[in-house]
Amino acid sequence: MTALDDRPLGLDSSARAALFTDAHTVQHFSPTPVSDAQLTEIWDLARWAPTAANLQPLRLLFVRSAQGRERLLPLLDEKNRDRAATAPVTAVLARDDRFHDAIPQVAPFLSGLQPVLDGNAEMRAQMGGYSAALQAGYLILAVRALGLAAGPMAGFDKAGVDAEFFAGTSWRSELVVNIGHPATEDAYRPRMPRLAAEDVVRFA
Amino acid sequence: MTALDDRPLGLDSSARAALFTDAHTVQHFSPTPVSDAQLTEIWDLARWAPTAANLQPLRLLFVRSAQGRERLLPLLDEKNRDRAATAPVTAVLARDDRFHDAIPQVAPFLSGLQPVLDGNAEMRAQMGGYSAALQAGYLILAVRALGLAAGPMAGFDKAGVDAEFFAGTSWRSELVVNIGHPATEDAYRPRMPRLAAEDVVRFA
Repeated sequence: MTALDDRPLGLDSSARAALFTDAHTVQHFSPTPVSDAQLTEIWDLARWAPTAANLQPLRLLFVRSAQGRERLLPLLDEKNRDRAATAPVTAVLARDDRFHDAIPQVAPFLSGLQPVLDGNAEMRAQMGGYSAALQAGYLILAVRALGLAAGPMAGFDKAGVDAEFFAGTSWRSELVVNIGHPATEDAYRPRMPRLAAEDVVRFA
Repeated sequence: MTALDDRPLGLDSSARAALFTDAHTVQHFSPTPVSDAQLTEIWDLARWAPTAANLQPLRLLFVRSAQGRERLLPLLDEKNRDRAATAPVTAVLARDDRFHDAIPQVAPFLSGLQPVLDGNAEMRAQMGGYSAALQAGYLILAVRALGLAAGPMAGFDKAGVDAEFFAGTSWRSELVVNIGHPATEDAYRPRMPRLAAEDVVRFA
């Protein structure tokens, strides 16, 4: 039938390794550059994964110029600056607090929801925040799917980043992600333990 | 060197299609069962992707018995019941409000954070909520990586699900995800539009 019927086995073990079992957060990056076309491709891949009502609240700022990096680095927690300093790109992942403006384009059947969201900042923060975080998960795996390394960091001055980069816009920073290629030495730290299924999974 | 150095190109196009470009939310599932071992494997894959401070707040309840499904279906929004009724499994994704209890095991270097989180419910909800949503994104792609179809649904009675399945525990439901194999007919609806890079991506 269609290509949708041709993948009963999912990913092979090397693809699973690249995304999950063998992928590590990178501590030090090589100087190998990442092009703007590669960065755009990250979105072109990640955007297909699902969001609540297809509303896609995630927005991306790729900081890769010397000037941009100079503005961003002081706003990261001190312990995170070294890692970001070696990365050719640091992405700021934001949620758009006016994601509902896209309803006519992405979810026209929800036109009744548009004025409701417009008048309810808490609902926007909750709904947009959840789907933007889902999309951040997709994005980290999309970076890896493209053969790049991703190093997400939650420790930074969100209000400072919003003031420096998003003043006068509806973008609200949520996470920063270093993107690049691993250094040939000291790229990785030993992996930290993950919870076992018996601590996480139940059945009913 | 190690396997970590052997994947400069990331996933091939068929693997990218299986996860992103060709993957659709399933509306109707086939009766093909999904085993408890397959469901456990979803966690064994998704758990390797990163969370803030490695705290892994996501918890999973896989509802697949006739009795469990009877308890869950009435708590879904009416429009979502048909889809869930054909799925062999519906997963309830929750965040553990006591995720900080695992700090000695998963992030011993953060022992100072444990009492802080214990005394600050808002910080737990924010920190745990964000990483649990990131992990929900990983999980949806892990389902697909295993050759299964995922159908996430945000519309359900969270308080009702918590009372029915998580009473007396620290689990808080956030999302439900149908899991199974696509039906041979009517499995998919036409795909809804995604935002273009020019609406989502900026550079600095």
